[in-house]
Amino acid sequence: MKRTIFFLSDGTGITAETLGHSLLTQFEQIQFDKITIPYIDSVEKAQQAVAQINHAAEKDGVKPLVFSTLVNPEIRSILANSSGLVLDFFAAFIHPLEKELETKSSHRIGRMHGLVDYNAYMTRINAVNYTLSHDDGIGSKNYAQADLILVGVSRCGKTPTCLYLALQFGIYAANYPFTEEDMADLKLPAALQQHKAKLFGLSIEPERLYLIRQERRPDSRYASLAQCELEVKKVEQLFRKENIPYLSSTARSIEEISSSLLTTLGIKRRLS
Amino acid sequence: MKRTIFFLSDGTGITAETLGHSLLTQFEQIQFDKITIPYIDSVEKAQQAVAQINHAAEKDGVKPLVFSTLVNPEIRSILANSSGLVLDFFAAFIHPLEKELETKSSHRIGRMHGLVDYNAYMTRINAVNYTLSHDDGIGSKNYAQADLILVGVSRCGKTPTCLYLALQFGIYAANYPFTEEDMADLKLPAALQQHKAKLFGLSIEPERLYLIRQERRPDSRYASLAQCELEVKKVEQLFRKENIPYLSSTARSIEEISSSLLTTLGIKRRLS
Repeated sequence: MKRTIFFLSDGTGITAETLGHSLLTQFEQIQFDKITIPYIDSVEKAQQAVAQINHAAEKDGVKPLVFSTLVNPEIRSILANSSGLVLDFFAAFIHPLEKELETKSSHRIGRMHGLVDYNAYMTRINAVNYTLSHDDGIGSKNYAQADLILVGVSRCGKTPTCLYLALQFGIYAANYPFTEEDMADLKLPAALQQHKAKLFGLSIEPERLYLIRQERRPDSRYASLAQCELEVKKVEQLFRKENIPYLSSTARSIEEISSSLLTTLGIKRRLS
Repeated sequence: MKRTIFFLSDGTGITAETLGHSLLTQFEQIQFDKITIPYIDSVEKAQQAVAQINHAAEKDGVKPLVFSTLVNPEIRSILANSSGLVLDFFAAFIHPLEKELETKSSHRIGRMHGLVDYNAYMTRINAVNYTLSHDDGIGSKNYAQADLILVGVSRCGKTPTCLYLALQFGIYAANYPFTEEDMADLKLPAALQQHKAKLFGLSIEPERLYLIRQERRPDSRYASLAQCELEVKKVEQLFRKENIPYLSSTARSIEEISSSLLTTLGIKRRLS
């Protein structure tokens, strides 16, 4: 069974995709063909979108599912006449909100990911710069500025998590890879000892680490299963000995790790 | 006027926040105090959330707005009895979807940002690695692997845009900063000339560039307004002469730039 899915937006389409994906994950037995149509900001573009939807309906023999965050009433009414099942986020929630807030909504399009103020932009950029210049143990003298320091063995997912935190939330996220020597002594390096409250550990299943390291340096000692097992065992001992909160990255997305660690350390986002 | 907003989720809370933010941007005259409560996966946690909502309602004297992506029916019914205005994303859309798809939804919690398969994880990691090792003109010999090469003057927003594309969509995004020499000749360097179809330009208002560069190297020639004006003028001449599609980053978010350039170049995402 297969369905065509449309994400319609007067902006980037990111919100329509996020909302649509979260609903579609509830129907995992069905295959979906996904099409995003962003920047629908005129009657002509709305009519083109309707033509695309109707074409898919004819081809598939079933209604396409249409997730829409369109705001403009005229454009929404054009889409309402398509052959798709239109799930209109704006229609569902804006009226109860207007009533409760006793305010008319602005009905302005492209609001969500369209606007940027200079301060928010600089917060984001500065966080990305900090994170890039404190990746992989570099710049450990400047940890006073860090919001958090992610620690763990090489290739357990520290760098992408830190970059996500910087881009999404404006967090100053440093990371430090434990070396074999750090772990042999079961002792935190001095640069970390000073900032212990900012530490969060990432662990990983040895088998997963082995796969990841094999892609990077096939057949090296570094990528051997024995080495991966040893390092993971040691790093978890160190986390426990030093009372560093940690979790495993094996079955978690970067989003989930980020959300958990901000909650655990009680770190306030600089962007929301 | 001020309102307390709650984002409730059995997962990270990202979908609830996305939904809520996109609706709240329609009411810009109102100030919102935002609280995310993630991982509500038990009756006790649901009751704690209700207590928090009721406390805010009493303190504010008006109903808090509650954006919920909770999936479990028992937990949702507990929340429905809070003093907040509950906007229940799941309730609004899952029934029409079940009816159209003639399938019961799985009602499983934490689906959206919780699961990861190994291939999707590696696509993301490999894209981040590629992007980091092809930042700021480095690695220009490996542009054959790039999905796109972002070009522009120093500090116009190339690096954060490339990192966003890598993390969000698994795109191999290189970037190359034009030097004064490149622009003086109005000529593309050979490494770029070979991959012209992958080029996308970023421009920026000189006044904004000046502000950004002043934060980086105050009072340098590099950060002077005259230099910023000259570079922006030259780079736009080069874009036009070489027919490189470009847009200005001044009033656009990273999300919007990313979405536009993928559409313009017709680049397929590696993750969706």
